[in-house]
Amino acid sequence: MLQNSTQCTSGSFLSVMISLLSMYFETPPVPNIDLNEWWGPECLQGHQDTSIRLFRIEFNESMIEDLRHRLRNTRQLTPPLKDSGSEYGFNTYEIPGWLQYWAEEYPFHERERMINRYPQYRTNIQGLNVHFVRVTPEVPPGVEVVPLLLLHGWPTSFLDFYELIPTLTTVSKDRGFAIEVIAASLPGFGFSEGAVRPGFGADKIAVVLRNLMHRLGHKKFYVHGADWGSVVASNIATFFPLEVLGYHSSMPSNNSPIALILRLIGAVRPSLVVRPELEDRMYPLYTQLDKILKEFGYFYIQATKPDTVDIALTDSPAGLLAYYFEKISVATRIYYRYMADGGLKNHFTREQLIDNLMMYWVPNSIATAGRIYAESNSLRYFSLQIYSIPSEVPTWIMQAKYEISYIPPWMYQLKYPNLLNETVLDTGGHFLALELPHVLAEDILQAMIEFQRWHEQHKVHIEL
Amino acid sequence: MLQNSTQCTSGSFLSVMISLLSMYFETPPVPNIDLNEWWGPECLQGHQDTSIRLFRIEFNESMIEDLRHRLRNTRQLTPPLKDSGSEYGFNTYEIPGWLQYWAEEYPFHERERMINRYPQYRTNIQGLNVHFVRVTPEVPPGVEVVPLLLLHGWPTSFLDFYELIPTLTTVSKDRGFAIEVIAASLPGFGFSEGAVRPGFGADKIAVVLRNLMHRLGHKKFYVHGADWGSVVASNIATFFPLEVLGYHSSMPSNNSPIALILRLIGAVRPSLVVRPELEDRMYPLYTQLDKILKEFGYFYIQATKPDTVDIALTDSPAGLLAYYFEKISVATRIYYRYMADGGLKNHFTREQLIDNLMMYWVPNSIATAGRIYAESNSLRYFSLQIYSIPSEVPTWIMQAKYEISYIPPWMYQLKYPNLLNETVLDTGGHFLALELPHVLAEDILQAMIEFQRWHEQHKVHIEL
Repeated sequence: MLQNSTQCTSGSFLSVMISLLSMYFETPPVPNIDLNEWWGPECLQGHQDTSIRLFRIEFNESMIEDLRHRLRNTRQLTPPLKDSGSEYGFNTYEIPGWLQYWAEEYPFHERERMINRYPQYRTNIQGLNVHFVRVTPEVPPGVEVVPLLLLHGWPTSFLDFYELIPTLTTVSKDRGFAIEVIAASLPGFGFSEGAVRPGFGADKIAVVLRNLMHRLGHKKFYVHGADWGSVVASNIATFFPLEVLGYHSSMPSNNSPIALILRLIGAVRPSLVVRPELEDRMYPLYTQLDKILKEFGYFYIQATKPDTVDIALTDSPAGLLAYYFEKISVATRIYYRYMADGGLKNHFTREQLIDNLMMYWVPNSIATAGRIYAESNSLRYFSLQIYSIPSEVPTWIMQAKYEISYIPPWMYQLKYPNLLNETVLDTGGHFLALELPHVLAEDILQAMIEFQRWHEQHKVHIEL
Repeated sequence: MLQNSTQCTSGSFLSVMISLLSMYFETPPVPNIDLNEWWGPECLQGHQDTSIRLFRIEFNESMIEDLRHRLRNTRQLTPPLKDSGSEYGFNTYEIPGWLQYWAEEYPFHERERMINRYPQYRTNIQGLNVHFVRVTPEVPPGVEVVPLLLLHGWPTSFLDFYELIPTLTTVSKDRGFAIEVIAASLPGFGFSEGAVRPGFGADKIAVVLRNLMHRLGHKKFYVHGADWGSVVASNIATFFPLEVLGYHSSMPSNNSPIALILRLIGAVRPSLVVRPELEDRMYPLYTQLDKILKEFGYFYIQATKPDTVDIALTDSPAGLLAYYFEKISVATRIYYRYMADGGLKNHFTREQLIDNLMMYWVPNSIATAGRIYAESNSLRYFSLQIYSIPSEVPTWIMQAKYEISYIPPWMYQLKYPNLLNETVLDTGGHFLALELPHVLAEDILQAMIEFQRWHEQHKVHIEL
């Protein structure tokens, strides 16, 4: 199933092009980082409680009663257009079954116990209460415990990583270390608070999560991310290259002008930029454009008017379900848009999908989460040109067949020259942690072994 | 307040450019029109009731009770980001006041009576029950009654025209005709049914409304439109040039490649394409781009996944209010996005704004209305290139200062060579019928007088 390669396809052509383009595009500086920037209410500044408090998610009766009432009273929905699958959005014929399940069958308290099976905490960073799961393995003497920060994206949650935790935290004689997992809710998502003022983009979120690791005593750490989690993790690796020991991504990207130009050149002759067997993941360009044109409406509205659409999603669980499920469906397999049921049950359990919605519904964090699109697609954010700032952090990428986009390893190396490996999957979609947890967990483990080896070879002393 | 002009600014330059471009871009043919295309449920085909039935809008107690319950139980909304006005969407601090008004103060039955003050009907056209207001003036002998079709857009309704009806239907000695007003709900909007299968774009809607006029005995008629109503009206004038006696638009546009290229050329030297005093309505181009980039998220999501977002809006009156009000606010004055209250009360009464929402909420037509964006932004629709098909129908345009875009009259003449007049307003926004009903009504009246004169001059016998 796995192939490993970081080889370039047409080395000389690319080298020349990259050299030429690099003369034109300057490398931007690492932005100034204010490690103490305050994002919470002003009145709380100076009164911060920096303790790490145990946290438990509660599905209380009044919440359940209210939710059930809303689900049962969902207004009559307009039938879908005939034979249109999910092309006009989530097929409304599919909704009543989901509402029925959520209201009448979803085992609230059983799932509450499941969600609370790993220890969770909250601690206040820069004015925001940040929620995270922390699982520390018991190790025999001589086994080093190394910290790994796991970051989810939208519209999923820290629960993405639950099936990975047993594999990741297993203590094995085969390796000289064991992993402490910290799976954080991105600030604004789930039970992590969002900022009270504008400007809290993926760069600022990166600082908060780096500070979280320091709060937990981890001055150096590994990080894995998917979706927005991948963007945030990449920002941490860019801003704090001496603190991040290795960065694993299941959604690697490079939106720098150089990468973009080379991507366009490849449209004329794909073999210049991508290995023949992976060509169909990048080209023809119009299939990528078609995807952007037809599937990025949610992105556009959240990048411009997140609060407007989120008012409706906050008030209607049926609306929330349709909005999130539509995106989970097409990001899992783009062709699922032609299916009325969105193909969801092919990869996910009903419990899993509703658990995920509950992580937005219960803490009422739909609006604060949605804002990440606006704050990370602003002029301020773009002006930082973070994607053009190289980082020496060793990286390891995993690319699923149906991921939203594919990046050739040499292109990723423009940003991360120390790319140790590309794992190419011949299956899997955007929500890899939910779809193929064991494959992802094994890949992350493998990456951590190689990151450690790399540091040994490069004689960088790892102080934990 | 009014200025009239159809003069070009730099005649010779434009003539040369237009001639050159016209050699390159072919004029597409008028598409084949199936006058009987069936858009309703298949099982009803062959059993159509073609009668014209009186119709009355009812605000019944169970609907009111359910609506009030939803409004009173709106979920806790996320506070807006500090000092962000309405830039991230409708400011949530403004919502409770509106919900309170809608649930506790809005005089349902008084408004129901107001809405029903003009006679309304429904009749089945091509499988769809189409709703319309019809006001026929009583005239002394010798006064001709001429029909005028009024078409609203999204997210407003036929109610837009209520304040215009008295002026339009007044019988005056000054003119030899009186106007019968037909204000239709676009199919899919309000109490007009939407199609049950894909493909029902603004071209197909045009056919249904033309057929409505025939059903009412009007083989020739005048038409006015705003927003989508303007697009539909333009399509009627393009497909049925011998039936449309005159077309008045308060949102004229021309998206043909030639118009687009000339618009871009004007970005370099505005005086080539637009009169100096109106230059700021078209240029600098980046202000237009900024508007599109920041304000068209709703357009994009509805053009791609209308059903998904409409599930939430159908289920949550608070969500519906925020979504619609945001667009009404910025389309009225673009700078209202910087104001927390969206400036709504500067131009509209609370009753007016809620009446409008009721025209979507009561018939549950939010989803079918939203689909007009997807169906009129499809490859099928674009391939017709309707904007490049010229029409001989005499036209008259009115351009408000704060309308979404401005088009110089010579550019509009590429599509409608018989443009009789451009009325330029130094105030007013996109929802002109609601904002300045008397100004708009007088302009339409004036246009109709000129349309008639034009036909007399051109010796075209008007058979009504």
